Amino acid sequence: MTKQQLAAKIDHTILKPNATFAEIRETILYAREIGAASVCLNPAYVAMAANLLKGSSTLVCTVIGFPLGANSTFTKAKEAQNAYRYGARELDMVINLSALKSKDYDYVQNDIAAVVSATPAPVKVILENCYLTKNEIAIACTLAEKAGAAFVKTSTGFGTGNATVADVKLMRKSVSATMQIKASGGIGSLKEAQAMLAAGATRLGMSRTAAVLAELDAAKPATVKKAAKPAAKKGAATKKAATKAPVKKAATAKSAAAKKAAIKKDS
Amino acid sequence: MTKQQLAAKIDHTILKPNATFAEIRETILYAREIGAASVCLNPAYVAMAANLLKGSSTLVCTVIGFPLGANSTFTKAKEAQNAYRYGARELDMVINLSALKSKDYDYVQNDIAAVVSATPAPVKVILENCYLTKNEIAIACTLAEKAGAAFVKTSTGFGTGNATVADVKLMRKSVSATMQIKASGGIGSLKEAQAMLAAGATRLGMSRTAAVLAELDAAKPATVKKAAKPAAKKGAATKKAATKAPVKKAATAKSAAAKKAAIKKDS
Repeated sequence: MTKQQLAAKIDHTILKPNATFAEIRETILYAREIGAASVCLNPAYVAMAANLLKGSSTLVCTVIGFPLGANSTFTKAKEAQNAYRYGARELDMVINLSALKSKDYDYVQNDIAAVVSATPAPVKVILENCYLTKNEIAIACTLAEKAGAAFVKTSTGFGTGNATVADVKLMRKSVSATMQIKASGGIGSLKEAQAMLAAGATRLGMSRTAAVLAELDAAKPATVKKAAKPAAKKGAATKKAATKAPVKKAATAKSAAAKKAAIKKDS
Repeated sequence: MTKQQLAAKIDHTILKPNATFAEIRETILYAREIGAASVCLNPAYVAMAANLLKGSSTLVCTVIGFPLGANSTFTKAKEAQNAYRYGARELDMVINLSALKSKDYDYVQNDIAAVVSATPAPVKVILENCYLTKNEIAIACTLAEKAGAAFVKTSTGFGTGNATVADVKLMRKSVSATMQIKASGGIGSLKEAQAMLAAGATRLGMSRTAAVLAELDAAKPATVKKAAKPAAKKGAATKKAATKAPVKKAATAKSAAAKKAAIKKDS
């Protein structure tokens, strides 16, 4: 797997509440530079992201009812509509965990459906697996699919636990082939990222993207080959040389504006 | 200080995302039984609380833009309006920490003012002190006061740190005498509760309310006297006797419905 191929599966994420506007801006520009699937950020920064991502293939993803999922259905739908209005094109919403725990499955499904129908954007339904039994994860997957969601997603990154390979496999088994899985929360190494993809995830939520992509550069071809076939094209390279080369390659495929964005570090 | 006097300063709180509906219901009824200032819960449960608290002096308090504070101002105001419509009479909102960190003080103040003006309910502004410098805490206090808030509040309970005596003192110094302070997050003992009140807090956010009130029952008169004068009325009592007596006393002052509410434990 090339750096570009991996980046295209990543929702490059900044959700910490105390990030400065400058950090958020850097994160957006880095997502654009690497050709991430999206930048995933809090709703207050959707307009900033939409502006900085104009003309690029990187989408604006935001979070709805995040991270507790215990907002009213009304508020979740309004938040989704407002985010879409300002340019969000993917919505990661948290289910109402209390309703699921209380076996009020109609509530859970209707809550998701209200967000799905609020905008044309695909919805990723965050189950927050750390609080759920295996059975509850499977039920939530079914409810998300019935409600018209595009993805089920493992975690917020703010709960008591993060994405696990076992949970991703269970989620993969619990939804139709047309639904996708996003693994997120705690993914900090290439090995972890590859394990999530191997388990069935098609999207990764990550804030430590730069470190993981750097690992991919540094990886020996054999290791890379093991994880994904297309990577065989890329030869062995020193860490230093590799760090520069793929960035340049990615920039070629991007607009002039993206080229100008000089990003020093991942936030 | 009597149990009733202390309870009247407490926002009895249940904000964990995985609480069952039954746990939330129990928390509401316990808040009513003890005569808490309010029950503080997530917005999805405001209508449930308003229904269960009918005819009592315990208010419904909910949280806005919680716990990250990074929702759009539009969503915060809509969330406040919707909560008020269903019966919330106090609103604890989280500031936009990124704006404060980025010194965009107009943003912070306008964000608060939008929630203040959205409903007639008093607003408690959560600063989430764990992420702030002392200077930022003082600035946020000023902005909250300018925006028309009724309280400044220390913490969400979901950050990297909780209420401290030093922060409460700083907040007390940073606002006019007409503004109140709510200490919340991590208060789990009578000693901690008393320290927060002594430092200037007039309201306490707590989920371990039952344990703290039980401590007050068990406390020797001398200890109680030291903390607050009115407690001298209450004589020495065995823990067992004291646990029952004040509950009975509180129930007498409450409605018949409250008497019927048989609460076994704090959630």
